[in-house]
Amino acid sequence: MRIDIITVLPEILESPLNHSIIKRAKEKGLVEIHIHNLRNFSENKHRRVDDYSFSKGAGMVMAIQPIEKAIEVLKSEREYDEIIFTTPDGTAFNQREANMLSLKENIIILCGHYKGIDQRIRDYYITKEISIGDYVLTGGELAAVVITDSTVRLIPGVLSDETSALTDSFQDCLLSPPVYTRPIEYKGMKIPDILLSGNDKLIDDWKYNQAVERTKKLRPDLYKKFIGEE
Amino acid sequence: MRIDIITVLPEILESPLNHSIIKRAKEKGLVEIHIHNLRNFSENKHRRVDDYSFSKGAGMVMAIQPIEKAIEVLKSEREYDEIIFTTPDGTAFNQREANMLSLKENIIILCGHYKGIDQRIRDYYITKEISIGDYVLTGGELAAVVITDSTVRLIPGVLSDETSALTDSFQDCLLSPPVYTRPIEYKGMKIPDILLSGNDKLIDDWKYNQAVERTKKLRPDLYKKFIGEE
Repeated sequence: MRIDIITVLPEILESPLNHSIIKRAKEKGLVEIHIHNLRNFSENKHRRVDDYSFSKGAGMVMAIQPIEKAIEVLKSEREYDEIIFTTPDGTAFNQREANMLSLKENIIILCGHYKGIDQRIRDYYITKEISIGDYVLTGGELAAVVITDSTVRLIPGVLSDETSALTDSFQDCLLSPPVYTRPIEYKGMKIPDILLSGNDKLIDDWKYNQAVERTKKLRPDLYKKFIGEE
Repeated sequence: MRIDIITVLPEILESPLNHSIIKRAKEKGLVEIHIHNLRNFSENKHRRVDDYSFSKGAGMVMAIQPIEKAIEVLKSEREYDEIIFTTPDGTAFNQREANMLSLKENIIILCGHYKGIDQRIRDYYITKEISIGDYVLTGGELAAVVITDSTVRLIPGVLSDETSALTDSFQDCLLSPPVYTRPIEYKGMKIPDILLSGNDKLIDDWKYNQAVERTKKLRPDLYKKFIGEE
């Protein structure tokens, strides 16, 4: 898989995309991540990447020219499955979307910045608009990191123990059951007896029931999906 | 405001917390961010921070001892308003929560890792469990960055133009209206006439109506909150 990230703040992306699981995935040759500084595509003599908005009110928007050039240059080099724009008004990102993205070959992620990009760039170039949640970030860079991280770890071979991703929260619309480690008694609270029983079948049943109960209680919206009502 | 982040992967947090708006907020003395490597609190001779889970199945969990020590050391130094744990089964983070956190004085963010932390640590120490979205990340570090970024930019004085945050998406349960910049015609698509009218009142009305319409169409859940149905 190849991910091209277009941004006005490449330095923000440095450490999260060069450590831990993403680092190992790159070293194994399972993913290539290319970060492009939008300024390098600006034809403005000061390499400006923002421009005035036609709507009155606070805030600049991203200039059209550098975005068009960056996308056109990349598209001339290979075919892209998706050109993603990270924006608070995009579709909510979730585990299902991460699973789907992890099957793609080439994607571009354009990081939104300032007050966003011209609506016509969205209409013309963008194939998928993604929001990672109902909050506003300094820029789309953190959204790009979140999308990249959650997607890359699902590429087969990236996690050393493949079952590990399968038992994550959300993979089957269920939250994870609670976990316990040593000591058996902590601050007067004991580990549930069943986990000490040594009976694998009982433990599995307990974990499943806990996952269902927690989902029902904490996330009724997710529970509806789980039981197929939505 | 002071934010203490406890993590097994401090290196991931480096670049996002040292650039752009967070960097400026730190330089202005509006926020202090302290990153604590959980390993430094481990009493294990190999500085281990993971331990076996009593639930069978793939994946280690975070050991109890280093977390307890890290939190106790910090709590002995000052009072904390919140001890936050980042976890996929936490409450959904949103702009309202970011607004509320931005008013706190001292918070701890404990980054979840591996298969999570012992349920009893959650019950005993954690005052707030936050999920930034319905997807699984390599660790809670990116969630901590997202929470920090969206919170810090709301601290008064951090953004140079204070009205800028007020017109963001979500501040009033509405998505932002579309934005347009030069040129007036692009790829055969013209900027809406009204934006060229020079009539501030008409433009403001148009922006508001666009925001309402887009929210209704793209985010019926948010629209319900906007009209007070939820």
